[in-house]
Amino acid sequence: MSVTDISFLDQIRSLLKKGAPRETLRELTGELQPYDLSILLNSLTAGEQLLLLAVLPPETTAETLEHFEPLEQYRFLDHLDRETTAGILNLMSSDAVVELFTALHPLQTERLIALLQEPFRTQIRDQMSYPENSAGSLSTVGYIAARRWWSAEQALTHLRKVGTTAEFYNYIYILGHLGELDGVLSLRQLILADPATRLEKIMIRKLITVPAELDQEQAAQLVARYDLTALPVISKAGKMVGVLTVDDIIDVIEEEATEDIHLLGGSGPVETPYFKTDLFTFFRKRIVWLLVLFVAEAFTGNILRHYESILTQVVALSFFIPLLVDTAGNAGTQTSTLVIRAMSVGEIRGGDFLKVVWREMRLGLALALPMAGITFLRAIMLGSQANLGLTVAATILVIITVSSTLGAIMPIVGKRLGLDPAVFSSPLITTLADAIGLLIYFQFARLLMGL
Amino acid sequence: MSVTDISFLDQIRSLLKKGAPRETLRELTGELQPYDLSILLNSLTAGEQLLLLAVLPPETTAETLEHFEPLEQYRFLDHLDRETTAGILNLMSSDAVVELFTALHPLQTERLIALLQEPFRTQIRDQMSYPENSAGSLSTVGYIAARRWWSAEQALTHLRKVGTTAEFYNYIYILGHLGELDGVLSLRQLILADPATRLEKIMIRKLITVPAELDQEQAAQLVARYDLTALPVISKAGKMVGVLTVDDIIDVIEEEATEDIHLLGGSGPVETPYFKTDLFTFFRKRIVWLLVLFVAEAFTGNILRHYESILTQVVALSFFIPLLVDTAGNAGTQTSTLVIRAMSVGEIRGGDFLKVVWREMRLGLALALPMAGITFLRAIMLGSQANLGLTVAATILVIITVSSTLGAIMPIVGKRLGLDPAVFSSPLITTLADAIGLLIYFQFARLLMGL
Repeated sequence: MSVTDISFLDQIRSLLKKGAPRETLRELTGELQPYDLSILLNSLTAGEQLLLLAVLPPETTAETLEHFEPLEQYRFLDHLDRETTAGILNLMSSDAVVELFTALHPLQTERLIALLQEPFRTQIRDQMSYPENSAGSLSTVGYIAARRWWSAEQALTHLRKVGTTAEFYNYIYILGHLGELDGVLSLRQLILADPATRLEKIMIRKLITVPAELDQEQAAQLVARYDLTALPVISKAGKMVGVLTVDDIIDVIEEEATEDIHLLGGSGPVETPYFKTDLFTFFRKRIVWLLVLFVAEAFTGNILRHYESILTQVVALSFFIPLLVDTAGNAGTQTSTLVIRAMSVGEIRGGDFLKVVWREMRLGLALALPMAGITFLRAIMLGSQANLGLTVAATILVIITVSSTLGAIMPIVGKRLGLDPAVFSSPLITTLADAIGLLIYFQFARLLMGL
Repeated sequence: MSVTDISFLDQIRSLLKKGAPRETLRELTGELQPYDLSILLNSLTAGEQLLLLAVLPPETTAETLEHFEPLEQYRFLDHLDRETTAGILNLMSSDAVVELFTALHPLQTERLIALLQEPFRTQIRDQMSYPENSAGSLSTVGYIAARRWWSAEQALTHLRKVGTTAEFYNYIYILGHLGELDGVLSLRQLILADPATRLEKIMIRKLITVPAELDQEQAAQLVARYDLTALPVISKAGKMVGVLTVDDIIDVIEEEATEDIHLLGGSGPVETPYFKTDLFTFFRKRIVWLLVLFVAEAFTGNILRHYESILTQVVALSFFIPLLVDTAGNAGTQTSTLVIRAMSVGEIRGGDFLKVVWREMRLGLALALPMAGITFLRAIMLGSQANLGLTVAATILVIITVSSTLGAIMPIVGKRLGLDPAVFSSPLITTLADAIGLLIYFQFARLLMGL
């Protein structure tokens, strides 16, 4: 039965209202996945939400809460009794706790951090010392470790003991005397091994790891490239900080793609889900760009003012302005979008600058030629004079080539200057292309029409 | 040592030239990951590539080839001897083989399919019967299955036997008498279980599965939502077709994001990596859209022609045309980008239409008000008459509100009509916004300036 089924919802509601015993509610919701439970909670009132959260098993609540934004999580935890809250917090994955604490006011964080048991509390403090959106803060401490001198049998025994509480258990991380990461072993290899073998004999020594300060986007690229299901995170001293699990990596990949898409569309990046974002946040993210582009675009007004006499002589020149500025913008956007995306997924690197610019310049010219021809034909068909048609066509030819080249140059140069290439998005390229396009237009008009 | 290190490359090259024994080359490249081997191969000449591929262990070659495009894979396989080719093909994951065969000409496919051993060959034919980009064709048949009446001990014995050749082994799929999927067991649960217990007693019965015809994008959404590392794919009869592994899912998520980004940027989607795509493909994908938008944009020329008399009377009206069309475009692009992305990640569904449109209409108005005010001030600052300033400001007010609303309506309606919402990209919305904007502009000019 779907969680959004009205009859199911009503059933839950009436049970909560009547104060039904927790076993009944647990039985009804027991088979639901955490994500689906979060959908169910979203359909209840605030009071009903707390009633339900109070009766669910703490492990279930911990997993379900991870599908909410940090501020929503806090709202729940703040209204539950201290004991329940402590139970839930201590069962949440460390990266979720770090994300929550990072979003809260320090006083709120201190209050909650006091509810954590050791060694979890120290681990959380350690992970919070890493930058936001770094591999360190995103990793989980719930992995299984073993010592290199143990036998396979000893490792399996250890696994049986801690295996039920660990969050990630498909690989076992083999540590040396000082806690440094020496190797890794998959569960399968452990099973296939002779029970008496020492782990250091069968472990894989050459493993892919990342430093804790590494940006999450680069860590995600490594996971995608090497088909990993987990990526160990190392401190400068070579000790394990935690493990990046692939489900968190998937979230990172989606979030980074969303951020790029928002920037490419000319908006500041919006990090919360659509309906959980208030209108004021949308306003803030969008008004900034609209204003910046407005200011930049105002320049085009100046250019037109400058050529007022020409426009007065041949008003027909103004008929083609929208066509010119938009075609230039389209060509520039196509190029910059393709180049920026290729940079994001690692297909274009800094050293490829000249190769890319040369490609896009030739491609721009190839696209510009037929477009210029069609422009000329259309102008003639509409009864314009040949030299006006030629002016427009010549401008189209130059402007598509120039926009395409700019659309390739700007993001790569931007990245070298330390900016996010996606900032050189459609609106910015379009505006620059407009200004250049109009200047060229009137120069050609002067030249070809004797104005 | 990095694979792009010149000295390493030279070392490999000279060894290949001298015809060094395969052990030497295998030792040198033995610790490289498949992805890095593919980078190494890309740095060699065609002849050197084949020499190297011939001496690598077939399992390594199989994994490395999966980092190449199908046509490149075919180029390699076609030039290697029959025995080597057969060895490699039979070790590739089934989804990679399906992708290769789907890209080839049927005659080429038939030739290669004859080299496959049973039951692999039949499995491949089965998987190719599913639509391209479906869960079925993307799944791998290299999973581990067990029968429900087996004991944990028997399952472990089976695992030890087949475990080294299976591609995916973190979960064991429990089948019934007719081969239907009855439950799943994680490797960890298997280890923790009493050896004598029958699997059907400890297996998880309620599991998430997908039908083989499901689109890969929706399957990927499920994996992301439920934090899965594998997703079993089922035929209509309930039998297992294969398993979607999380590394393939990550590739799907990246590819789908890339496709959306390309569409949003006004280009047809380009499915191959940037430098592996020839200029003609880029030309094809981009010229289509440039032409379509050109035709649409030509309408704006007609609108301006229609109002020629007004433009002749007040040439200053033309100064603001780029500003108007671009601001309208920016507002529309911001909205459509945010809405389309939210639809892609499942945050907006079909039933949210009215909610979304109402939100964006109010947001558009909120953004339009300050923009209109600033427009008016700027016009006055430049010395324009008050009624011209008012005309431009009033147009900005209406056009930002209208573009934002359109940017929300069009993608959702488009999706209902069965189109890819990302098609309603920036260029399309911009063009529509331009036409509407110019019409409104001249109406206001008539009204407020008595023209």
